[in-house]
Amino acid sequence: MFPKATISRFPMYFRVLTEYNHQNIALVSSEEMARKVGVTSSQIRKDLSYFGSLGIRGAGYDVAYLLAKIKEILGMDKKRRLAIIGAGKLGLALAGYTGLKQHGLEVAALFDIDQSKWGTTSGQLTVFPLTALASQKEELGMEIAVLTVPGAVAQTVANMAVQAGFKALWNFAPVRLVVPKNVIVQYEDLVVGILTLSHHLARKFG
Amino acid sequence: MFPKATISRFPMYFRVLTEYNHQNIALVSSEEMARKVGVTSSQIRKDLSYFGSLGIRGAGYDVAYLLAKIKEILGMDKKRRLAIIGAGKLGLALAGYTGLKQHGLEVAALFDIDQSKWGTTSGQLTVFPLTALASQKEELGMEIAVLTVPGAVAQTVANMAVQAGFKALWNFAPVRLVVPKNVIVQYEDLVVGILTLSHHLARKFG
Repeated sequence: MFPKATISRFPMYFRVLTEYNHQNIALVSSEEMARKVGVTSSQIRKDLSYFGSLGIRGAGYDVAYLLAKIKEILGMDKKRRLAIIGAGKLGLALAGYTGLKQHGLEVAALFDIDQSKWGTTSGQLTVFPLTALASQKEELGMEIAVLTVPGAVAQTVANMAVQAGFKALWNFAPVRLVVPKNVIVQYEDLVVGILTLSHHLARKFG
Repeated sequence: MFPKATISRFPMYFRVLTEYNHQNIALVSSEEMARKVGVTSSQIRKDLSYFGSLGIRGAGYDVAYLLAKIKEILGMDKKRRLAIIGAGKLGLALAGYTGLKQHGLEVAALFDIDQSKWGTTSGQLTVFPLTALASQKEELGMEIAVLTVPGAVAQTVANMAVQAGFKALWNFAPVRLVVPKNVIVQYEDLVVGILTLSHHLARKFG
């Protein structure tokens, strides 16, 4: 129903709409949103047209209604619990990332193969042995496995997560994963962003 | 010259081509690359066609030549030094991220407003006061400022980075930044990825 590119802009729309909501702004124009989000107003009108005709000509979009719709589309009306596998720096950074909770996502536990990390708590969280993945998934009701492990072991860890029953993986390791068809993988490659920046820098300033 | 979407795939191409190179594989087909990267082979042929006709029908692409070309396009033939502003968990995770060095990018120093962090070294790196940004930029030859600060102070920090002479910002704070026209900003929003995953999860499993 929604093109992937449109979906990718919804979190940004959600963010600015939340701001308007906090400021008690009830109606907002596509031009106003465009300025905040950094895309064209025609792009915004096109993206929001998938919800049917929400805009009131001359008045703008209903902020609260749009927020509710986007929340629904992004599955944010449902709370989701995350397991972070790999209690290294990146795993700990994600565990403390406030942006997740704001979007209905909660890190429930961390997992690591390194025995010296077990039991230590990061904030209020416990680090469990990797072998406890299946039992803790059940116990804590976790749905999404976040992979913050080195690339060399990512596939092995992904296999363990799949075996433990996870149907959604958020992969920060720089490798493509082979998973069964009913498992969803979202890749997060930090190097793509910085290389894009580096490319523009080279073109602009040499 | 290159569409943005094509540029965004180059780092992935670079990654698999580097692997082939390490395995002493000199020629590779678009089908083979497609399997590794996870896009269609026709997409790969289209993306690589921007380099002119590099493929040899029936033999495949010259791995070494393609690698050199992509390095050039991504500005990787030139080393770039990074300043990380915000020595919190995410800043420290990025400072230790090996993916950067593999791509010609080197974190030269960290900066923080919190006095208690100054001087402490993360790995071999020093945390400087934010006020030392301009002098250390000069001293260490840094070109890219990485913003790993809370959203509430991101614009202020961006202003300081621009004033210090940075022409490229890599922004992890979840806010749009207002910068002069000659400054490039690359946004990195971790929530977009997880919300995309959450959306697919909701559609597939409810």
